[in-house]
Formats: sequence, structure tokens, C-alpha cells
Amino acid sequence: MALFDSFSPAQYAGPDSTDPLAFHHYNPDDVIDGKTLRDHLRFAVAYWHSFAWEGGDPFGGRTFERPWFPQDSMAQARIKADEAFDLFQAVQAPFFCWHDADLRPEQGNHADNLATLDEITDYIGEHMQRTGVRCLWGTANLFSDRRFMSGAASNPDPAVYAVSAATVKMCMDATHKLGGQNYVLWGGREGYETLLNTDLKRELDHMGRFLNQVVEYKYKIGFSGSILVEPKPQEPTKHQYDFDVATCVGFLRKYGLEDEIKLNIEQGHAILAGHSFEHEIALAAAEGMLGSIDMNRNDYQSGWDTDQFPNNVPEVALAYYHILKAGGFTTGGTNFDAKLRRQSLDAEDLVAAHIGAMDVCARGLKAAIAMHADGGLESALQARYAEWESDSARALLAGSLDDISARVLAEDIRPAPRSGRQEQLENYVNRFV
Amino acid sequence: MALFDSFSPAQYAGPDSTDPLAFHHYNPDDVIDGKTLRDHLRFAVAYWHSFAWEGGDPFGGRTFERPWFPQDSMAQARIKADEAFDLFQAVQAPFFCWHDADLRPEQGNHADNLATLDEITDYIGEHMQRTGVRCLWGTANLFSDRRFMSGAASNPDPAVYAVSAATVKMCMDATHKLGGQNYVLWGGREGYETLLNTDLKRELDHMGRFLNQVVEYKYKIGFSGSILVEPKPQEPTKHQYDFDVATCVGFLRKYGLEDEIKLNIEQGHAILAGHSFEHEIALAAAEGMLGSIDMNRNDYQSGWDTDQFPNNVPEVALAYYHILKAGGFTTGGTNFDAKLRRQSLDAEDLVAAHIGAMDVCARGLKAAIAMHADGGLESALQARYAEWESDSARALLAGSLDDISARVLAEDIRPAPRSGRQEQLENYVNRFV
Amino acid sequence: MALFDSFSPAQYAGPDSTDPLAFHHYNPDDVIDGKTLRDHLRFAVAYWHSFAWEGGDPFGGRTFERPWFPQDSMAQARIKADEAFDLFQAVQAPFFCWHDADLRPEQGNHADNLATLDEITDYIGEHMQRTGVRCLWGTANLFSDRRFMSGAASNPDPAVYAVSAATVKMCMDATHKLGGQNYVLWGGREGYETLLNTDLKRELDHMGRFLNQVVEYKYKIGFSGSILVEPKPQEPTKHQYDFDVATCVGFLRKYGLEDEIKLNIEQGHAILAGHSFEHEIALAAAEGMLGSIDMNRNDYQSGWDTDQFPNNVPEVALAYYHILKAGGFTTGGTNFDAKLRRQSLDAEDLVAAHIGAMDVCARGLKAAIAMHADGGLESALQARYAEWESDSARALLAGSLDDISARVLAEDIRPAPRSGRQEQLENYVNRFV
Amino acid sequence: MALFDSFSPAQYAGPDSTDPLAFHHYNPDDVIDGKTLRDHLRFAVAYWHSFAWEGGDPFGGRTFERPWFPQDSMAQARIKADEAFDLFQAVQAPFFCWHDADLRPEQGNHADNLATLDEITDYIGEHMQRTGVRCLWGTANLFSDRRFMSGAASNPDPAVYAVSAATVKMCMDATHKLGGQNYVLWGGREGYETLLNTDLKRELDHMGRFLNQVVEYKYKIGFSGSILVEPKPQEPTKHQYDFDVATCVGFLRKYGLEDEIKLNIEQGHAILAGHSFEHEIALAAAEGMLGSIDMNRNDYQSGWDTDQFPNNVPEVALAYYHILKAGGFTTGGTNFDAKLRRQSLDAEDLVAAHIGAMDVCARGLKAAIAMHADGGLESALQARYAEWESDSARALLAGSLDDISARVLAEDIRPAPRSGRQEQLENYVNRFV
Repeated sequence: MALFDSFSPAQYAGPDSTDPLAFHHYNPDDVIDGKTLRDHLRFAVAYWHSFAWEGGDPFGGRTFERPWFPQDSMAQARIKADEAFDLFQAVQAPFFCWHDADLRPEQGNHADNLATLDEITDYIGEHMQRTGVRCLWGTANLFSDRRFMSGAASNPDPAVYAVSAATVKMCMDATHKLGGQNYVLWGGREGYETLLNTDLKRELDHMGRFLNQVVEYKYKIGFSGSILVEPKPQEPTKHQYDFDVATCVGFLRKYGLEDEIKLNIEQGHAILAGHSFEHEIALAAAEGMLGSIDMNRNDYQSGWDTDQFPNNVPEVALAYYHILKAGGFTTGGTNFDAKLRRQSLDAEDLVAAHIGAMDVCARGLKAAIAMHADGGLESALQARYAEWESDSARALLAGSLDDISARVLAEDIRPAPRSGRQEQLENYVNRFV
Repeated sequence: MALFDSFSPAQYAGPDSTDPLAFHHYNPDDVIDGKTLRDHLRFAVAYWHSFAWEGGDPFGGRTFERPWFPQDSMAQARIKADEAFDLFQAVQAPFFCWHDADLRPEQGNHADNLATLDEITDYIGEHMQRTGVRCLWGTANLFSDRRFMSGAASNPDPAVYAVSAATVKMCMDATHKLGGQNYVLWGGREGYETLLNTDLKRELDHMGRFLNQVVEYKYKIGFSGSILVEPKPQEPTKHQYDFDVATCVGFLRKYGLEDEIKLNIEQGHAILAGHSFEHEIALAAAEGMLGSIDMNRNDYQSGWDTDQFPNNVPEVALAYYHILKAGGFTTGGTNFDAKLRRQSLDAEDLVAAHIGAMDVCARGLKAAIAMHADGGLESALQARYAEWESDSARALLAGSLDDISARVLAEDIRPAPRSGRQEQLENYVNRFV
Repeated sequence: MALFDSFSPAQYAGPDSTDPLAFHHYNPDDVIDGKTLRDHLRFAVAYWHSFAWEGGDPFGGRTFERPWFPQDSMAQARIKADEAFDLFQAVQAPFFCWHDADLRPEQGNHADNLATLDEITDYIGEHMQRTGVRCLWGTANLFSDRRFMSGAASNPDPAVYAVSAATVKMCMDATHKLGGQNYVLWGGREGYETLLNTDLKRELDHMGRFLNQVVEYKYKIGFSGSILVEPKPQEPTKHQYDFDVATCVGFLRKYGLEDEIKLNIEQGHAILAGHSFEHEIALAAAEGMLGSIDMNRNDYQSGWDTDQFPNNVPEVALAYYHILKAGGFTTGGTNFDAKLRRQSLDAEDLVAAHIGAMDVCARGLKAAIAMHADGGLESALQARYAEWESDSARALLAGSLDDISARVLAEDIRPAPRSGRQEQLENYVNRFV
Repeated sequence: MALFDSFSPAQYAGPDSTDPLAFHHYNPDDVIDGKTLRDHLRFAVAYWHSFAWEGGDPFGGRTFERPWFPQDSMAQARIKADEAFDLFQAVQAPFFCWHDADLRPEQGNHADNLATLDEITDYIGEHMQRTGVRCLWGTANLFSDRRFMSGAASNPDPAVYAVSAATVKMCMDATHKLGGQNYVLWGGREGYETLLNTDLKRELDHMGRFLNQVVEYKYKIGFSGSILVEPKPQEPTKHQYDFDVATCVGFLRKYGLEDEIKLNIEQGHAILAGHSFEHEIALAAAEGMLGSIDMNRNDYQSGWDTDQFPNNVPEVALAYYHILKAGGFTTGGTNFDAKLRRQSLDAEDLVAAHIGAMDVCARGLKAAIAMHADGGLESALQARYAEWESDSARALLAGSLDDISARVLAEDIRPAPRSGRQEQLENYVNRFV
């Protein structure tokens, strides 16, 4: 009585179809701008939300019923893997992402964690072989177990630092084994609940050293993928050190990692930090640190991470526009770090959620490609900053304050404001989305 | 019919006094920990909010009636200065802070702006001489005039960059002339309203160059004070580049300014950015970039900058605790970047607001000094991180992921979580505030 | 050198047009579902934002240059009116909305305010006659002038209550004279800055009485339009009594006004109050109090009222869906209580902003009509609640707790959760938007 | 190996004591204003947070280790009760509060839930008898079990309505049996995740009927305590019907319950709804619906319900000031709906958290009593509204808009704004806190 094997792979049926389990916009083999939509978008399903999360929230427990619950044995872990690959195929997902703790149960000690992860990733490797589904990225869960309650690399207890390091090594090895294209670090508990018990400086230094160890190990094992960190401002902790893109960029630069580590940016985390998703993407791109994205929205009226499947095409289009401007994905992709609402109990809900999300992304991407090709935003931008291309303007940057002051006086410079044309640019965007 | 000359300097009357215009906690000459309260706190009055702001808000205009309104002539500017120094004396403020545009009206062109600023700062210099009131910091207003609507150093128009540079030079010269102890840059319009018309990378590079020009000029004129930038996440613009302390630190490091520029941190801006005030202070201190503070709160229920006088002693105490931990103020101080509510029409309101704020700060500081002297928080901190002092812990940081992994396996390391004791530490703090 | 008379009325050019000043979706004469789009949408231009607002924000003054600035004489008021009607025609707006203070300058006393309002509304009446543009609603500005700083009907000073009442009478008379279809009350300063100086109960009672006086006067003069109040949670004040729809509904019921007064709901205010726009509309509809809408969005990342033109079609579609479910507009309409960004200096910006907004609304409405006609959401709703139509379910509501308890025990009732299908419904909506 | 029996009852040791487990401000037997502090404050410990919650959060599971975990048998439930009463005595709590699901494990069917609740409340009754600890209120947990995922009284499935009604009857009976002084309803899942699947009007009507059934049953069994509902805007659901005090007041009035039901107001929920705690209390008092309080704060930087023990005396003082103005508690009290941080693992943390919270409340209450006795705020209020006591002012309320208009013209009324004195009132408050 498997859940997902009765769903044959979703097919493209065109925008006018009313079939709720067909793609209306995402035709994986469509070639636009020299690349298939599959290769533009590089969709990944998140193992944790789709298979490990049981439907609980702070005020209630498990709502889902799944054949692989309770998740307490390797036998159940294998059933979960079988189902996961059925789902990947049902929604034509080319990639998946995982934490160690999603794949098999925590064993309580590192040796057994290592052995069982090895076992289950062998099993998963066979599924990958069979189905062609690939690993976009792997990561270590350094936040669920009680031992991580006060942080992982930033823990006051060196023993936790040690176990965290060993766990990351284990997960990097597993990612490498599975041909993962990136390795991600999300510091869910790297932060604090109260400054009263926190040595900020020391914890940041430990995190900086930890990330350097990760990079050193990457080279040692010859992992050719990207190392990514994932900004988030808070939740579960009151304050997280990887607050947003700007904070992460500053942190990486401080610890000499600006050429080694890129960012995995999530829409929901952008919103929690008081930014738009496109801001975070554009800033990472401006710093040369755009790695991959988690395409899951937060509810604008909720103050916590709701991790919902994307459903607003205009927003998604702006995100992809900035990704396209930065050259598109290389090792990165579009991971749905999204979970069903806990009232969405049925297998069909999970299938439909992914199909709908892929359609939203495909529509957004197509709009972004068209807008990018049209070039209207870019030419408006060039016009707006055009005067900076003159020698006289460049001289301003090269000069000194007193030089400039003399020139302002000599030339009696009185700037004439020009319209920023925001509404006209917004109208322009609406022609495409 | 001057407003403030009838207020004789406020005196310390002790905590049990009911005199609304006496200090109940701030006795400037009290020596604690080897320094007077005056020298610990280094209070400054903000010229803009107290004298230039007229009581308007987005839905209504001027409410205050002041002898120096309308602020449209040099004669009025002199009356304003007279009144300002009366107020400084009435509240025993040792310092004040100013923008060029607060001191005299904008003239519409740089030459006249320069001449009139020179004239009014001569006049103000005489008041300083007479009263002993000093300049904590000066700054340039690069946001009110229409010419700055799209930014100053980050403006798409090089002419605005030029005028901004000339204006900052002018204000640095004036600050230097008045013996100012710091020069502050707040980039109120360095940011954007919409990414659609914004070249993020270019604007950041221009800002980076601009700040380098400021530092170069500082050395040229021999200004021995500190250069400070002031984080704020938004308002007036949708996004400001100096979002918060972490963002500014990263920015300064990127442009090679981490040893040259420090931060002026405001409680209200911390709140807008999703941080506590003490977080911003502690982070700046951890980075060695703590410069000065603006001690004005925002309303937690309002999503904009309310710039209110401080009134919550426990919050203020935590802020000063982190300042004390960092060694206290050097060139910095406690500026009240605070404005009266627009319904607080009377001269007495302004006097009382400053007196009350000084009392709140003095109570907070005394609590912080006592807490610092008691050392309870510090010893709890040392105990929590004590194991990091061992050789075995240091070896973790020096080693590699695979070394650590081997050790975890060999020693079967299983961390035992220990209580973070947050509530007990909060209780401890409540013994002092 | 009028600004807007060179713009000939915008024409419908179809979705593929690239003309930035043509309609791409709004064809006023298109008949859908038995009504023209003009009559479905009932667009109105807001006199205040488009003609009286000068581009200021809390950190800077006027940026716009308009022939009718400064707004200090009746001659200028007539120029403003001429221009306003040019703009109404340029964007084919069937309606406009106004405050007294938008139309002519405040005179400082009621007699002169009355005489000048009479004069300018005569003049405006001629423009209406000539152009066919109608008045959607009028309202009194009881917040800009200094006299209203502590509230209007809720002011501690009875003299302000008196002037407020006289002003509302004046504006109701003018609305009646101009054939206005609604009269709106927005209590921008009916609230408080601090509870410390506020008698909540008394202020609420005075507001309740004030609204009853308004209703009594409506009947007295035979005004056949609707009386509407407009919810907003805060800004300019810290707390406003008309916080949101639920608060207003409760207030109106308390003061016996639930059958007399309806609501004017704004998207931006919904967001400030922590709600979605469709929530506020749906709740007002459920209470039978849906009157009219202000279709202007806030920026989700800004904590204040940004009053931007709408630009997100999916959001707008959901709003119109709930309006359609409630039967569509009767006296109400779609007012753009939206202002240009202050950097959008040009006349063309204002024209384009309205055209773009109308297009967004037309697309949203068409999607909503199609979705409503399709009936998929409605049938899903009926299915979800179907069991409530049984006698046995109705008996639960009629019974007592002990009856029900007995039945639960006797029948051993154990509810079986069913999927809420949120993602599938969101996908369904995305078929239409 | 019980956790709490080694803690002897905390004693008052005065403000200078450094004993972390003594009261520094709360001396239960102190008589102020004719009442002991015990009777003023009426502290209650929350069974759920202190004994049933295991330390989990959305990103991690149980952190606490307690003798009564796992909570899966009646034997464990009895151990939990033994420990709970040890804690109540250790912190001298006169009251406790509970949900059915806190006291014993959910059984999966109503008959067994009923039998086991009866059994455990008998056992608890013995502890109450023995210790003198009383029940402040009981309530039904209609949110944790999977069956309530789509609401309780507002569930689309009548079977859930039925089970909810039976459960509330059961809990009201148990509360009555234990001599509870109030019965509380918190509608944690009475709301929606998405409007797309929600019939707002029907759900509100069902909730209205449900509450009427509760009131009818109260009279039937002769329960003499108060029925209270508890406002909360969101979390767990996106929107909750009992959003805030104003919404609840409107709801109760609509369904004819304004004289039957009062409110249980929580600081954290006030903050989530965009209000201050004192606002919610003052509004409930103004409506005559102030029942009881949950004195647990949220973190101002976190967008979810953090349920922390109170630690800011000035905030707490303002809350008690409004409670005193309303006459103090009758059946209500100060419940700590607060949980330890999940890193606070030790028994001592729970003891100290309650002691510290009681001290904070006692300090706040004493300040409030002194401020109330001094009468400064009240006299300022009377002065501010004094003119409303005149016949001429009362005539304004009695009259019509045209009468008032005539009078404004005849008397040429021009209001003169007066200072709101906010800063001076804030300074006044700081004399007491």
C-alpha cells in the first residue's frame, strides 16, 4: 500500500488544462534561451519537509499518516526512501536534498550514526541509479537533537563542536558519495537565546574556524561542488548569526572565505529578515556569492517560518530575473524547502503541491527570460547611471573631498533631480508576469 | 520673550524629590568607579529634533510655536542658537550634536551654504566659549533637500555625489573648527525605493569610495576625532545600505575601513532592524567598532522611527552594561536623537523630557556599574565556556574535520547538555535594575 | 503650460501592446457578466495624493513641481481643479474622491472654510458637468491642521469636537451637492499617542455619539449615499480606534450603527493591522458591512503606510473575488488612495501609475469573474461543510452541552480528520490569475 | 528521586538579599491597601508549560528530563501531579491552572478521556486539600490532538463540534469539582490557515452558539466562577477569530454574551496583535470585561509566542495600574502562562523562574499601588478632559451637526491646542517604577 507509486509522472498539458495533476506551465523539455526548463530551474524536493516532518506545530502533534511512521528503524527508513523516489518520479523532480537525520533515525552516538548513514545512502544510491534522480545538496542536521540545543560550532561545550565537526565530515562524505552538487550549512542554532549567557566574539570566531575546516576538508576529499551557507535571522533561536545575506557576506569576508563559500537563499528567510527575496538574491549576486535558492514563501502576516510552496508568479519572476542577470544557476538550483500545511493530509496533496509550485516557477522563469531578453529594465538602468561613464564623473571617485569641493564651487554645480520612474518600471514588469 | 532662559539649570534633588524639573538620579558630579557621571554618560542634545523639527508628521504639519519659526533667515538662525544654548544650560547638557541644515537655512547653492554655515558656526562657537558646552559630533544633512531624493554618495547622478562630497567636507571643517569629538555619517537616502531602478553593486562601490575620501580628508586636516557611520535598516527609503551593525561592519571591512571608522548605534534603529539595542552594541564591541550611541527608543508597536526619549531603565541598563564591558565611551557619548511628541507643545515639555531621559540613563548606568562590579554575569560566562580553555579543546580548533571525527569515534564523545540558566541570569539582572 | 491636457484619454490597446500609456487589460466598455468593466470596477482618483501631496516624507520636503504650488490661494485651487479634471480624463477615471482640505487651502476659521469650500465645489461642479466625471465620495480632513493634533471627535477639548462636527456637516453638504455616492470618515487622529493621558472609555463614547450625529444628519438632508468608516490600526497615532474591520464592526454594533454604516477597506491598512486584504473584505462581507475599497498596497517590508499603486495581480484577484461573492459594488468603488513615489517627478509618472493600476485591477477582476463563474472554490466550500446541512448536525447547535456529551458517549463519536486541500486550492486559483 | 521536594518554600529575604531562591520583593503576607500581596496578585502556575511541555520547538524535540516522562500512563500522571504540588509549595503559589490534556494522557475516545480525567482530578483534589493550593481556572485542550487540526467549535465537521462540546462540558464539570474560580476558553485553532477553504460567517456563528451553550451550562450546574475567553491573533493558525480584546468584545456583543463572558488577557498575545499589554487591559476594563491575566511576555524581536516569564518591572507596573484602576482582581488572578527556555534544563531553573517572576510582579504592583494612591495620573486625566463637564460641552453631544455648526459660526470657535505632556507623564511614572 505505497502512497506514491500510483501517481504516474506528471505530464505537461498546457495552460488551458484543468487537470489538477498535470503541469500547465512546466514542460521540462521545453528549450528556451538554449536550455531546457529542467536545466534552467533544476528543481529539488526536500526530503525533510516531504518525508520526515509529521505535521506537528507548536500547539499540536503529528497529523499525517504515512507508511514509514514511526520513523524509528532502518526498515522504516528504507520504506521512506522507496516512497520518496516514487514521489520524485511522480513530479519529475530531477534533484533532491537531505539532512542525515531525514534519511535514517538518529542513533544516539556517532559510530552508529555513521554506520547507518552509510547503509541508507547506499540504498538511496541504488534508487538514484535506477531513477536518474540526482542529489542537489546534502547537509547535516545540527539542530534537532537535544545535544545541539545551545548551538553546534558555536556551542559553549567543545564536545558539541567535536560532534558537529564529525557529523559534517560524515555528511560531506555522503554528499560526495552521492554525487551531490553542493554542500549546505544552515546554522539553525548558531546564535543565542539571550546575550546574558553568550560570548558573541568567541562564538563567531569558532564558527569562522569551523567553516574554514569545512573548506579545507572539501579540498582534501576533492569535492568539486559548492559550499553554501544559508542566511536566516531567527527561529529557532532569538538571534542567528547568519542573519541575512549582508551579514553572511561580512562574516565570510572576515574569516577569509569570500572566495570559497556561497549562499543558499530562501524566500521565507528573506522575509523574516525584513528583505524582499529579490533583494537578497541581487545582493548575493553583486558580491559574487549567489549559490542556490530555497523557493518557499512565508506568509506575510505570520512572524515565523511558514515554509509554504510558492504561489505568487510576479514575486517568483523577479527572483528569477536576478538569477538570470547573474548568469543563471551553475551548481545551484530551485529547492522547495516547503512543507504541506498540516491539514493537507493526503498523498495527492503532496503531489499537487509540488506540481503547482513547479508551474509557478516555470511561469515566473519564462516571464523573467522574456523580460531579460526584452532588456527594458537593463536599458533603463543604463540610462539612469549613464553619466557615471564620463571622465568627469570618474574623476570624482578618484579625487579628494577638497578637490571635489573646489569643483562644486567653481562650476556652481546644482543637481537637477530626475524622475526615478518606479511606477513606469512596475508597469513594464507587469507586461511580462 | 525667550523660551528657555527662565529655566535655571536643573539640580540634583535625590530620588525622593517630586520636583518634575529636578534630577532624581543624575548628579553630574557624582564620582563612580573613578569618573563623574557627566564623564561616564557624556550627554548630548540633538539640535535637529529639539530646535529644527516643527512637530509635523506624515498626516499633519507644524504644531510647535517657537520664536525662531519660520526658519528662513540668518536672524532666525541666531535666535535659534541663543535658545538652544539656553536649553543646553537648563538641562546641564555637556554636549550637543548638529547637521548643517539644523543650524541655518539651506541656501540653494553650495557657495552660500558654505558662507552661511561659516557665519553661524562662528556665532555658535561664541556660545560654546561662553557656556562650556561642547560639540559631541557634527554631520551633514544629505537627505532633506530635494536634490538628495535619490541618494547622496549613491546617487545615479554624479552631480549629487559632488555636492554631497563638498557638503561633507564643509561639515567636517565646521566640526573640526568647533572641536567636535566625532564626525558622523548617516546615510538616510543611501539605499533604494525599488530594485527595479537600482544598480546595487555600483551604488555600494561609490559609497565605499566616498567613505574612503572622508577618511583621507580626516587625516589631511588633522581631525583627531572618530569617524562614525550610523546603521539604520529603512525609513525614509525602503532599504538602506547601512542596515544594521553586522551589515556596516561587513561593508567597512570590504572597503578596507575596519580600522578607520566606528559605529554610532541607535536604539530605535536596532529595533527597526529586528535587534535589541544591546545586541547591536555588543556586536560592535566584539568587532572593535563601538563608537557612540543615540539613546532614543522606538515604540515596539510602531513600525517606523518614533525617536522617543528613553524611559525604560532595565533596557537602558543592559545597553550601558555592554558599553562598560567595552571600556566605556572614549570620543563617543549619549546623544538623545529624540524628539518630543508633537502634542508636547510647551517649552517645559522639552526641558522635562531631557531631564527625565538623563535620569533614566543615570539609573541605568548606575545599575550597570554595580552589575559590572559584582561580576556575576562575567563569572557565569566564564564558567559556561570554561572548557574551551583546555588544550584538548584548542586542539579541536587547530585540527581538521577528519582528525576530529577520528577523535569523536575513538573517545565515543557524547555531549551532555547543561542548563543555559537564562531565567536565573535574568533574575540576577533584576537585582540591579 | 498645463501638465495633463496634452495626454489624450488612454485607450485600450490589448495585452500585447507595448505602449506604456495605453490600457492593456482595462477596456472600460467591455461587458462581462452583464456589466461593463467601468461599472464593475468604478475607479476613482484620490484628489489628495495626486494633487495636494507635494512629495514630502518624514526626512525631506517637497519634491514635485506643479503649477498649482504653492497651494495657498483660491486661484491656485482653481488651477489644481483644472489639472485634476485633465488627469481624470487622461486616465478615463469615472470618479474622484476628496477631502475639503485638498480642494482649497485651510482658512484658519470655520466661516471662511465654509465659504471657500462652497466656492470651489461650485467650480468643481462645473468641471463634473462638463466631463461627466462623478464624485465617489467626499470626506473631511480632521487630521492635518494643528487643531486636530489630539483627535477630532475624541479630542479632550470640546471646542475641537464642535469644529469637527461643523466640518463634517460642511463636507456632507458638499458631497450631497456634488452627487457623491458615499460619505467617508477616516479617524486618523481618533486614537492616542499614550494611554497615560487618555480616557479610553470617554473618547470611544464621544466617537460613538459623533457617528450617530452623522447618521442623523444624513437622514435630515436626504443624502441617499452610504456612510462609511475606514479602518486603520495606527499611523499617524500609535493606536487608532478604528483598528481593523473586526474592531469597527464591534464599535458600530455597540453604538447601534450596524445597519447604518459600512466600511471602506484599504489594502495597506489591512497589512498594517496584520491581515490580508481579502480577510478584511471577507469579514466585512460576512457582517453585511462591505462598502467600498481603497486599492493601494503597502510594501510588506515597510512598517508604515506606503500607499503604493497596486501591482500584484494575484493579490488583487482575491480581493475582487470576495467582492464579487458579496454581490459586487453598489455605491462603493475602487479608489486609488495611492501616491507616486516621491522620486516620480513627472506628469507622465502620474498618468502611467493610474493606467498601470487600472490594468492590474482589470486583470484581477477578470480572473475573479472567471473563477467565480467556474465555481470551483464555492463547490469545494460546500463539500467541506456539507455535513452541517444534516438534521443531526443542526441538532448539535440547538442542543445543550450535556445533550451533546451524552450523544458523544452513546455514539462513541471519533472524528476522522479530512484534508483541508490548501495547496490544491491555491493551484486552482493559479489557473485563473 | 523527586525533583522539587528538596526545595523548601521560598521565603521573603528583602531587596538586598543575594539568595537566588528567596523572594526579594514578594512578601505574600504584606498588607498594602488593605489586602495582602497574595490576595492582590493571586499567582497561578500553569500546569502545561511547567509540567507537560517537554522543551521542544519547531526545530528540535524534548530537552527536559523529568521523572514523569514519557507522559503516557496514569501512573506517570500521578507522579507529575505529586511533583507539580511540590513545585507549587516551593514557590508558594496559591493557585494553579490546567487543561485536561495536561493532567493525564489523551485516551483516544471520549469515554476514556472522561473516566481518566475524573480519576486524576480526584487525585489532584487530595493534593489541593492537603496543601491549600487552589484552582484559578481550568480549560479544555481543543488544539493538540489531530482531531482538532481544523478547529473545534468552528470545525467543518460536526463530529468535531460534538466532541469539543463534550470535552468542554467535561472540563467545566472538573473545574467545578475542584472549586475553580474561572473557566477559560482559548480558541487556538478557531481560525483558519487559508480563506480559500473557509466559510467565515458560518464558523463565527457556530462559535457564537458554542459560547452560548457554555454559558447555559454554567447556569445549569451552578458554576459561580467567571467564563473567560482569551484573545490571540494568530499562531498556531494564520488567523484566529479571537484576534484581540476589541475583536472579542465585538464578537461577544454580537452573540449577546457581553454580560456573561469576560476576558483573560495575555501580554504575549497583546504584543503579537500589535498592542501594548496595558492597552488590552484598559480596553477590557473600559468595556467592563476584564477577567484575568496571563503574565508572560513575548520577545519584541520574535514574531511568535515566546511565553517567557516577565522580567521588566516598568511594563508590569503599567499593567497592574490599569487592573487597580478597574478595581483589582475578583475571580481573576496572575497566571504565569510562561515556559522555561528549552535550554533551562534544571529543576532549579523552574523554581527560580517562578520566584523571579513573582518578584517582578510584586515590584510592579507596589509601584502601581503607590502611583494609584498618589493620584497624579488620574488628576492629570481629569484636568485634560475637564471641559467636558460643562453644560455647554454636554450640549454638543446632545445636539445635531447643524446645531453645532451654527454655534461654531456664531461663536467663531477656534480651538487652542494644549500640550499632551506625554514626556512629563512618563517621567512621573518613572518616579514609581
